[in-house]
Amino acid sequence: MVSVELITVGDELLIGQVVDTNSAWLGQELGRIGAQVDRIVSVHDTAADIEAAVRGALERADVVIMTGGLGPTKDDITKRTLAECFGMRLVRDEAVYEHVRQMTAERGMPFNTLNQDQALVPEGCRVLPNRVGTAPGMMFVQRIGERQRMLFSLPGVPFEMKTLVTEQVIPLLREYFALRSVVHRTMMTFGMAESALAMTIAPWEEALPAWLHLAYLPNPRGIRLRLSAYDVEQSVAEQEITRQFEKLREYIAPYMLGYEPSSVESAVADLLRERGKTLAVAESCTGGAVSARITAMAGASEYYLGGVTSYSNAAKVNLLGVAAEDIERWGAVSETVARQMAAGAVTRFGADYGVSTTGVAGPGGGTPEKPVGTVWMAVAWRTVEGAVETEARCMRFSELREQNIERAATHALNMLRLRLLGVSEAFQQTGML
Amino acid sequence: MVSVELITVGDELLIGQVVDTNSAWLGQELGRIGAQVDRIVSVHDTAADIEAAVRGALERADVVIMTGGLGPTKDDITKRTLAECFGMRLVRDEAVYEHVRQMTAERGMPFNTLNQDQALVPEGCRVLPNRVGTAPGMMFVQRIGERQRMLFSLPGVPFEMKTLVTEQVIPLLREYFALRSVVHRTMMTFGMAESALAMTIAPWEEALPAWLHLAYLPNPRGIRLRLSAYDVEQSVAEQEITRQFEKLREYIAPYMLGYEPSSVESAVADLLRERGKTLAVAESCTGGAVSARITAMAGASEYYLGGVTSYSNAAKVNLLGVAAEDIERWGAVSETVARQMAAGAVTRFGADYGVSTTGVAGPGGGTPEKPVGTVWMAVAWRTVEGAVETEARCMRFSELREQNIERAATHALNMLRLRLLGVSEAFQQTGML
Repeated sequence: MVSVELITVGDELLIGQVVDTNSAWLGQELGRIGAQVDRIVSVHDTAADIEAAVRGALERADVVIMTGGLGPTKDDITKRTLAECFGMRLVRDEAVYEHVRQMTAERGMPFNTLNQDQALVPEGCRVLPNRVGTAPGMMFVQRIGERQRMLFSLPGVPFEMKTLVTEQVIPLLREYFALRSVVHRTMMTFGMAESALAMTIAPWEEALPAWLHLAYLPNPRGIRLRLSAYDVEQSVAEQEITRQFEKLREYIAPYMLGYEPSSVESAVADLLRERGKTLAVAESCTGGAVSARITAMAGASEYYLGGVTSYSNAAKVNLLGVAAEDIERWGAVSETVARQMAAGAVTRFGADYGVSTTGVAGPGGGTPEKPVGTVWMAVAWRTVEGAVETEARCMRFSELREQNIERAATHALNMLRLRLLGVSEAFQQTGML
Repeated sequence: MVSVELITVGDELLIGQVVDTNSAWLGQELGRIGAQVDRIVSVHDTAADIEAAVRGALERADVVIMTGGLGPTKDDITKRTLAECFGMRLVRDEAVYEHVRQMTAERGMPFNTLNQDQALVPEGCRVLPNRVGTAPGMMFVQRIGERQRMLFSLPGVPFEMKTLVTEQVIPLLREYFALRSVVHRTMMTFGMAESALAMTIAPWEEALPAWLHLAYLPNPRGIRLRLSAYDVEQSVAEQEITRQFEKLREYIAPYMLGYEPSSVESAVADLLRERGKTLAVAESCTGGAVSARITAMAGASEYYLGGVTSYSNAAKVNLLGVAAEDIERWGAVSETVARQMAAGAVTRFGADYGVSTTGVAGPGGGTPEKPVGTVWMAVAWRTVEGAVETEARCMRFSELREQNIERAATHALNMLRLRLLGVSEAFQQTGML
């Protein structure tokens, strides 16, 4: 198996100002193509530390991927250090020079000496053009003893690094190495806790062929179930994994959102598109998060008409048609207000479906009856007769604002998904079939 | 300065299943007491990898802190490996044995051999009792050449690790080492590219006292400028850093958002609160992201009335009062529509300020005149006479949907911030004072 070592350069990681999410992403992406990250090293941006890390990594690994330290300012010294390390001088790359010139012009930035220096590269490295940023990536091939090693130096800005890896590094690795064949496929689930899920699917898990490996990968937006096959012919592995996930439907169909990168919102989008239906949202405690998650998906305008974030009571009344006396009587966080908000989204936007949230996100605003974390959510839809019907649900989350917003948005979207699937209200309340 | 190396043990980090937040937390906590993390290494949970990492770290650092691999299951081999590494045999610690027995009883778990083995510790290490979990921490003191080195092995579960570090590791470090004092302070900026910023503040940077170290930390929501002082009395360092950031105002005042964790939206929130003004938003291409960023902050309801995401033209007309003929004539992505949307937010919500976005987020929808990444944004405000005035700006971002949404939201909020500060429109267009 091709062994990879990651080196992340920058004080910000060592002093804990930034969490290293780049390495986790790289670990996943490389794993997908059958390369294995065997070590991750984070060092200061000093020449001595960078050089020591590079020399150590080249001793151990087939491939070294470095991120960070390629910016235009004085503290960015990765490029100079690599040039010294490999005994190369820095020369101007005309294509990069032109790219940086254009990019700075487009953004109305000055094309000063610092930017011009971004076009300097160690002579003899392979330049990996960075179409989404100014600092190019670089590839070095080194022979150490018997073996050829590859070293990549990439910018630390996550989307620049990711673009370079996806478009250039991975194709180069595939070209240079015979990668071990690996097939991963991941099913996204939502709505069941990990231990309950494990108990429910235990018979399925026990019947899996020995060469299929199951992993549970929980995160706040659901639990991912990954099946992996190593060194099995790709078509055979893919067929068997597909067959196994089909079998899994017998156990947990309403909890299955689809293959990664599915999410509750992408499942909703698929259902709306299939049926030619439209959606509008009415948010209070989620504050725009439901709308933002829908519109983060390309093509959302096909089915999404828009939303109202009614953070004030007046906005609930004026923009969504909630009855002022109901807010007065039951409070803004109440079943009737949630239902009226969802219905208001349907009528005001002329949508087929509406979904709403109203709750106490915290840290302030809690009461003994409605503590922080209490959220009412509702779904509304137009019947064939043209009437608007609604269903509502109350949940209690945590004391953490960020978590309450995320969970309320996810559960509201899931409630809509279950309505679109025609799963009964009883199921929604209990999570039981 | 006491040099620390962190070793995190576990496949889950290398395959990217888990993001290493423990190391960032340790970097911060150790920095606070003047110990410096100089390297972070993540390795597989195999004896060879752990031993190689431990030997390398003990060569370089005064203190090594290992996390992970102390659980009761077969793949947790840190303890056995350390015992072999240091030539110690495993012996039962009676206090730990009793603690694990009690803890398993309380949780209704079986006190089986796996759990009993948690009381085995390398003979001669110092046991650090874990009051919140079953795996104890351990401290080893090793003489290597002239110097004494300390190695801590801690559980990887974040709250167990944190409890042990706070209650035991840090007091032990204070006892064994004369710790260097360190002060960090970070200023958040937005609106100037890194190279332009570096050029603009060069005279200020050059005039900094030699004992203050400056670092640029860019991310998509701005560039952070961090000043650090080592071995300087805390009050002196803090005063000087404050004075220097005050001096920085002469160069880039309108770009400075405040000390970390400031953001464009928190700066907007502060200005609105100070002035007792309210805000509403009207979003198209950002799809709720502006609203979500405002409401992510606790207490947003003090100044935030709400927003409309008008993803369809009908919503722009019906909910925000944009003239249908202007959409027809100029297109939804146009200066006049942006201005009318912002004005609509002010009038429909009865707010003092409004901000809007309308653009082509991509990947579809671009035209030669309005390519993907084109965004119009506008700010509206009520004058003392009660009229609504607006200003608008067009920007071109990238081809990536996610980035376009994030940058449009940030720039729209920044435009509002500059309006609240009374910085001229000419400045906003050019970024120049």
